[in-house]
This record gives sequence, C-alpha cells and structure tokens, in this order.
Amino acid sequence: MTQHIAGVGAAPGLAIGQAVRWRKEQPRMESRRVEDPDREVSRLEKEVLRAKEQLTHLRETTRERMGDEEAGIFDAHLAFLDDPAYVGEMKTRILDRRQNAEAICQEVTEEMSQMMASLPDEYMQARADDIRDVGNRLLLLLSGREPFDPSLIQPGSVVIADELAPSDTAQFPPGIAAMVTARGSKTAHAAIMARTLGIPAVLGLGEDLNRIREGETLIVNGEEGSITLHPDPDTLNRAREQIDRERQLRESALKKADQEAVTGDGRRIQVFANIGSPADVDAALKNGAEGIGLFRTEFLYLENDHWPTEEEQYQAYRQVLESFGDRPVVIRTLDIGGDKDLPYADLPEEENPFLGHRAIRYCLSQPEIFKTQLRALLRAGVHGNLWIMFPMVENISEIRQAKELLEEARKELEDRGVQTARKLKTGIMVEVPAAAVIADLLAKEVDFMSIGTNDLTQYTLAADRGNERVASLYDAAHPAVLRLVRQTCDAARQEGIVVGMCGELAGDPRMSEVLIGLGLDELSMSAGTIPEVKERIRRVQSDAARELADKVLIQTTPEEVRSLAERA
Amino acid sequence: MTQHIAGVGAAPGLAIGQAVRWRKEQPRMESRRVEDPDREVSRLEKEVLRAKEQLTHLRETTRERMGDEEAGIFDAHLAFLDDPAYVGEMKTRILDRRQNAEAICQEVTEEMSQMMASLPDEYMQARADDIRDVGNRLLLLLSGREPFDPSLIQPGSVVIADELAPSDTAQFPPGIAAMVTARGSKTAHAAIMARTLGIPAVLGLGEDLNRIREGETLIVNGEEGSITLHPDPDTLNRAREQIDRERQLRESALKKADQEAVTGDGRRIQVFANIGSPADVDAALKNGAEGIGLFRTEFLYLENDHWPTEEEQYQAYRQVLESFGDRPVVIRTLDIGGDKDLPYADLPEEENPFLGHRAIRYCLSQPEIFKTQLRALLRAGVHGNLWIMFPMVENISEIRQAKELLEEARKELEDRGVQTARKLKTGIMVEVPAAAVIADLLAKEVDFMSIGTNDLTQYTLAADRGNERVASLYDAAHPAVLRLVRQTCDAARQEGIVVGMCGELAGDPRMSEVLIGLGLDELSMSAGTIPEVKERIRRVQSDAARELADKVLIQTTPEEVRSLAERA
Repeated sequence: MTQHIAGVGAAPGLAIGQAVRWRKEQPRMESRRVEDPDREVSRLEKEVLRAKEQLTHLRETTRERMGDEEAGIFDAHLAFLDDPAYVGEMKTRILDRRQNAEAICQEVTEEMSQMMASLPDEYMQARADDIRDVGNRLLLLLSGREPFDPSLIQPGSVVIADELAPSDTAQFPPGIAAMVTARGSKTAHAAIMARTLGIPAVLGLGEDLNRIREGETLIVNGEEGSITLHPDPDTLNRAREQIDRERQLRESALKKADQEAVTGDGRRIQVFANIGSPADVDAALKNGAEGIGLFRTEFLYLENDHWPTEEEQYQAYRQVLESFGDRPVVIRTLDIGGDKDLPYADLPEEENPFLGHRAIRYCLSQPEIFKTQLRALLRAGVHGNLWIMFPMVENISEIRQAKELLEEARKELEDRGVQTARKLKTGIMVEVPAAAVIADLLAKEVDFMSIGTNDLTQYTLAADRGNERVASLYDAAHPAVLRLVRQTCDAARQEGIVVGMCGELAGDPRMSEVLIGLGLDELSMSAGTIPEVKERIRRVQSDAARELADKVLIQTTPEEVRSLAERA
Repeated sequence: MTQHIAGVGAAPGLAIGQAVRWRKEQPRMESRRVEDPDREVSRLEKEVLRAKEQLTHLRETTRERMGDEEAGIFDAHLAFLDDPAYVGEMKTRILDRRQNAEAICQEVTEEMSQMMASLPDEYMQARADDIRDVGNRLLLLLSGREPFDPSLIQPGSVVIADELAPSDTAQFPPGIAAMVTARGSKTAHAAIMARTLGIPAVLGLGEDLNRIREGETLIVNGEEGSITLHPDPDTLNRAREQIDRERQLRESALKKADQEAVTGDGRRIQVFANIGSPADVDAALKNGAEGIGLFRTEFLYLENDHWPTEEEQYQAYRQVLESFGDRPVVIRTLDIGGDKDLPYADLPEEENPFLGHRAIRYCLSQPEIFKTQLRALLRAGVHGNLWIMFPMVENISEIRQAKELLEEARKELEDRGVQTARKLKTGIMVEVPAAAVIADLLAKEVDFMSIGTNDLTQYTLAADRGNERVASLYDAAHPAVLRLVRQTCDAARQEGIVVGMCGELAGDPRMSEVLIGLGLDELSMSAGTIPEVKERIRRVQSDAARELADKVLIQTTPEEVRSLAERA
C-alpha cells in the first residue's frame, strides 16, 4: 500500500529510484600494546600522507563538478591533518603509551570532536563533523579495511543514509537519482551540494528512514520534502509522467536559453546569474546568463590566509568582467561579519551576527581593507561593464560614505598613474527592511537597486534562514516581503533607475509572473534555473501579471500566495 | 581650559559634580602552607556564610530601591556560593594541598571565570564577571581587609571607575550625581541600573578616563554621552541653569501626574506604564499611569527553578489587575527564546536567537506550557480589565492558533468549574517588520495592536540592540521605523481598533509630538517618564503634530528626525 513519509525538502525535483544504502564503513578499533612505537608512528605518517592524497583528489574532482566553495570543505579536512594538536598529539601518545595507531587515532579524534561539538556555536559543531570525517578516513586506512566503493552504485539509485558528509556527496557517481537522510537540514553542507548537483534531496526523516528497505522503489519529492513508499502503479505512472514533462520542459528551455526573455506582450526582462567565483562563469554563459546580477566576492577572503591583495582581487574581477564583455557584471563588495571565521581578521563573535557589524558596516569601519577592494574594482572595471553594489545599506549616509571612499580609491590609483574605469554604476542591495521602506529616498542616491530576498525575508520575518526551528516561517512569498518588493520597484521607477532581484526568490519559476507583476526589470539566479525562468517569462502577459501581483499582496499567508501564483 | 571627552550616553540627564574614584579593593593573595587544613576549611565556610548574608542584604535593598529584575543579579551570586564546583572545589583543594583559603579561592575563581569568559557567548561572559565579583567579596572577607566604604561618598559626587559591577551600583549612597566609567555599554547591567535609579551615566570612555582627576568638577551629559572637564564659569552656569530648568519641569509635571493627558485641541492620549513584576505597580500608580501598557511576564519564568504553576501565575496577574481596577492591564504572554537560560526548560542555543524560535513561536510549539499561562490569565481576568497581548506575531495563522489555545484553556477551566474572565481583549505586539507591513490584514483579527519599537527597530534596521558595535545604527527615530509606525496606526484606525506603543520611543518626551502626529492613541513607558510625557502631550496641537509627522517621514536620517522634533 502506498505510504508517505514527510521530511525536509532540501533540494527540489522529483525522482523515482531504488533505495541503496550508503554504507559508512565502521573501522575496527582494537587497542593493543606495540613493541616498536617508532614503527607505529611511521605507519601513522604514511597513512596521513595517503589520506592527504585522497583528500586532495576529492578536492579537485569536487572543484570541477561543483565549484570552489564546495571544494573548500576539503581544505578544512586537510588542515586538520597538518594540525599538531591532532596528528602531533597522536604521535606523542603512541610514543608515550606504546599503543597501536588505530586506538590512539580513534581516541584523539573522539576527544577533539567532542570538545568542538560541546561549544555552543554552529560553526564549531560543523568542524566536529569534519574531524570525525577525517578521523574515519584515517582509521580506515590504518586498519587496511576495504572501503565502501561508491562507484558500484547503479545510476538511477536513491542514496539513503543516516547522514551524508560532504566527502560522501563528493563521491557520488554520476546519475544518482536522489538522496534521502535521517539527519540534516536545508542548510547542511550536503543539502547545498545536492542543490548544486541538481539532485533532489529529502533530509531529516529521523526514525522513519528505517521504514525504507534496500532495493525497494521510492518516489522522492524534493520540493515537498516527501517520500512515497510502495507506490501503486497509478501513483508511479503519474510520477513518471511528471518527471518526463519536467525533463522535456527543461530540455526545450535549455535549447532557447541563449535567446532573450520577452513577455508575451513584448516586455524584456533581463535574466542574470549569481556567481561565487570566476569558476562559475562557464555555467552562467552556458545557461544563457545575460549578465551577472550578483558576484559574491567573499571567496577571495575565505579561501586565503591573508587579506586578498589589490592584485589578487583585480585578476579575479577582471576575468569575470572580460568574460561578459559589454554585459553588466554586478560585483557586491565584501559581505562578511561575526559569523565567519577569517583567521587573519579580527571579527569578534556576536550574539546575533546577522544583526551585527557586517557587510558595508564592517567595510566603512575598515576603510583600508575596503579601499583595497574598491581599487581592484576600479582597475578591473576598465575591462568590462562594471556595476558596484554595496550590501546591507540601511541609510543614506552609508551610501555617501561608500561613494566617498570609492572616489578616494580612484584618486589613489590616479596618483599612481593607473587607469580606472570611467563608466561604472554604483548601487545598493535592498535587503534590510529599512532600505525597502525608504527606497524612495535611497533611489535618489544610486544608479540601481537589487533586492536581496534571502536577507530581506529573514529580517522582515525575524526568522534566521539558517535555523531549522523557524524554517517553516521563513518564506520569501510572505505578503509582507512582496509588499516591500513592490514598494522598492515603485521607488525605482519613480527615479528612473534599474531594479533587480538577486535572492533565491528570483530563481523560482513559479513566482516569475508575480515578480514581473511587482515591477522587476531584472532577475538574477543560480545558472541552472535560468533556462526555465526565461521560458516561464515568455509565457507571461504584463497585464495579467500586474493583476496577479495586486491580488497576491492582499493574501494573508505565503501558502495562499504560492497557490495563487501556481494556479495562474 | 574647557575640554570634552566623548563616551557612550548610557542613562540620560545632565549633572555637575566632583569626581570621586570608586575604589575597588584589591584583596591580597599570598599563598602559604597551612598546618591545619580542616581549620582552613571552616574559616572558608564561615566567610561563605558572611558573604551570603551580605549578598542577601544587597538583594533586598536592591529589590526595594530598584525592583525584582535588578535584585535577581544577586541570586546568581548566591547560586555560585552553593555550587559544589566552586566552593566545594575550594575545600577539596585546601585539604589536598594544605594551602590557605585565600590562595585557593583566588585560584578557583580565576579558573572558573576564565573558563566562562572563553565561551563565545555574551551570557556566559556576564557570568564570568559575576563570579569575579563573588570571588573578590570572598577574598576580602577571608583576608580581613577593611572594604571601601561607599557611604562616605558625599551626595552630589560623580562616581568614576574603570568598570562598575551591579553589586557596586547597588551600594551607591543616595544622592550620587552621575557615574562615568572606562568600560561598559548601554546594555551593561550597570547602565540598566543607572537608568532605573535616574542617575546620568556616561560609559566606555576608555583611556580618557585617566584624564579625570579626583576632586575636580565635571559636567556629565548622559544624553549626549559627553564629559566636560575644567568647565569655564560660563559653561558651568549654562549647565546649572539647564539642570534647574529640567528639575522645575519635572517637579511641576509630577504635581500634575494624576491628571489626564489631553492635547491643546482636546485629544485625549492615554499614558500607561510598562512593568516587569507586581513590585513595579506602586511606582506606576504614583507616577500617574492610567493603565499598564505592557506587563512583561518573564520574571515568573526567570526567577523560578520550575515552570511557574497556574496558581503562581494567577496570583501575580491578579495582584496587578486588582491594583488597576477598571483600568486596562495589557499582559504580554511569555516572550522567551534561545538567548535565555532557563535551567528547567529545553531551549537550545541558536546562532541568532533574536531571529529564532522565541515568544509566540515557542509558545505555539509548547501548547501545555502556553495554556498554563492562558488559564492563569483567564482566571485573573475576573479581577480587572485584562488585555492579553501575543508577542512576535508575523502572520494571521499565529493569531488564530493562539486564540484557539485561549479557547481550549477556557474550556479546561470551565470543565473544572472555575470562573473565567468574560470580557477581555486580545491583541498583538507589532514588533516584527512583517506585522507592520501587513497591519491592515492583521488588524481584522484583533482588538488592539501595540507597537514594540525596541524589536521593531532592531529588525527593521538589522541592528542587534544589545550589540555595542552597531549601537550607532540602532535608533527608533529612523524614518523607516516611523513609517512602519504610521502604517500600523493607519491600519488600526481603518479597522477601528486601539493602537498603542510600548517600546522605549514611547517614553521619550522629545518624540511625543511626532508620535501623536503619527496617530497613536496610547503610549506606555517606564513609570518615571510618565509625568514628563503627559506634560509634553498637554502642549501639543494635533494639526501641528500631524504636519510634523508628515515632515519627519521624508527625512533621510534619524538625526534629522530628532533635530526636527526638537525644534518643534
């Protein structure tokens, strides 16, 4: 009999496949006395080297398949293997206590991960998972057991597991249909990877995971976060048809990805891509991005062990600008705060980092760091169509100060005889509710505004987008958020400036008509969703969209908004 | 020559006085071997008892002078003296190592406070200060040194100190003119106490504190957060005149505190008090409160070591309701979340607790805890004019669920044959930006709305009100916040329901005219500011207020708003 299990929809898409359990090898852990501890230490050293080779390989394949950010996880793993408090401690204990490397490795890993897990900080808890992951790898190597071979998993399988570490997801062979886990949330690393790979994912099933038997056929709905067990033939057929329909739509959309997105009545909507590093440019171009609506620059700061130099930044910005020629590239200045751990920066912990000293606030307080970025931007702007965007602005004085520093940076370059971009636009990210509420005042100071719905939603609804416990409240389709979007669009039109959107809402094809009706000129999203959104835009009529938007704004819940939007 | 030093204005008011340094006794800490460790342990036990007596006394005098919340600090101190990991550990070490109690006390205190200070959590860091405070007291007692005697400080003195612990402020003799410190922020315990005592305070002077010499005359401006050193006779005279003027205004306002507040053109504005426990009722009545606009119920939960029972809550609510007879008492249901440590509750830490699972969100997820409070309210409502207010509402479904639970609670009482309030109002706190943005939709579901400007400001501006690093951004006079206030007032008028304000903005007399112009019917504030606000209201003309409000909404910064309001 058809049964349903509910979990958290962590990556969208519908899939049918046979359940395959991802076997996490449990390394043995016998403890014994060794006669020759020096030999034991060399054995440990040898396996640490092998672990490093494996991790370096994983990092490179992940970088190719997914990008820099995802690959960065393995840098953390590699760093542990160089940490004297970890491997060094193991060596000391082996020599002191004359015990075997496996037992000591197990012990030190357990101690370090427990210590980190006990700290009241999500970041450190994630590091606790990382070190367990590294420790397991090392134990496997030391104990010489045959590891689980993911390449034996058949294409079209649904991977089920208690939990998936990033190093697991990175080893997925091509063609995995979906993933399902007992633990994990929308914001887990594994969820982020699933979305990047385009694999539907349902996480957080808890005990219900045990109801799934290996080999049986499941329907996984990553949108709704539901699993269907023992589907009857009808259910199965309907799911298959839907999957086929969606695939055809995707394929036909991809064929037309390079064409402009024009509504039925001839209104042109620009569709841009959000990127996190120059490595993402290819995917953006391939999917028909007409520009970059959000180039996040944090990767330069997170990947380095020093403040990135003007030259390092210049090279990265120039590369992206050149790839897009005349088309706009919106580069967002550093958006960082107390929730990020930059070892070389002095970012004190904050009790509510999302409401803290971050983004433009931090940059204005650190003019030298900020001006280094601005100089790199001004130099790179010579090679393309540069739009500079300041994040987290909530008042006019921040805009004025940022522009003053931009002029100072320009002056510094000119004094050095360096060429700077003559034509560039400056704008703001509208993501703090105040900015939307006084958009009419701010619009007078800038060339463009881009609505960042992720932060705008979390502030407007006072719901941390990384907190599972308020995940049910966090929805950008809340009428209050959409009213602020409308207000911002109206203000932009009044002043005759461009208004775009670069939050996740912009990439949701089911909301495209509403967004056009609210007055947006430009939508920016993950590259993968561009073809579908363009296709959706082509079916929109401006008048109907406007009417739909008006209706949506007087709904009382996000659910009502979404159901109206889908019926339209 | 007149010199100025800038700090953080932590409690308003202007004062002139002679600087007196608050001497923190540094207990000696010689370590020596003892022959009779048992005797040393009894000596420790004796002084622990004396410390407890002192702290109990301090708690009681603080409760009388300031209230329950402030007195609660000493409960934390007393709890440490009962903690086996603290005093118990000292005893063990004295017996093990045969060392004197002073040295061991110093050592254990240092270890515990460093451990707590190392945790990345503001709450634990505050506990680190508490334990240092307790440890110093115990060391002083053990070492038999004469403690600094605060009662020798002359009335009219300005207390200067590197830092003031709550136990210092609690020992202030009457008549202290002002306080000035090198460290501390607006949100420090000492700042809260200064505001409660009505003592102007400037904190966070840093190194500049050393420029103040003991005995010299200072002008302290707690509003601006500035200190004037070596004031010339003119400056001194102007300050004296202003202090006199303000005192006269306060006195004349207090005489008329019992009268209603009616604008020049006859519009009645209700002026209510915010209270934190039944102990605050007297001050509210004495200052002419026409009702309670916000009765925070957290004290019941924070002071207890168990979930407060229906009966315990009933007694507290009834006491307040009876004191106010027919006049409205707005009781806010539990507003608690991951930033509070209730030992008996399971409140997981959250990365951004202000954007987390708190207030109505928490209560709806814990219906039994919530219904206990609702039953206590329904019973207490029989004895007065009860208005129940739900905090942190951001959508209609929360209101409906809360009202359903209220009806369930009523049914449960009726099944027990218990009498429940027949006439009561239910309303919401408008403090999440979404609630203000869709106030027109929410107003249809409730009897009243009360704007909580403290949270509304921090969410609208994305600036944690407890974070010193964004303190300069946090200002309720931001035009975006005031626009949301106007929008909420308009929605309330449209639906014909009452709209009030219970954040700190409501108690700022310089903003009274603007608030009336924005459309508020009721203002609720700390009892002490009621007379002055009432007096200010009497000088307002509705038309001019409306014009002022319109003008204020198109200003671009909070500073412009405040300067317009003050010129009016």
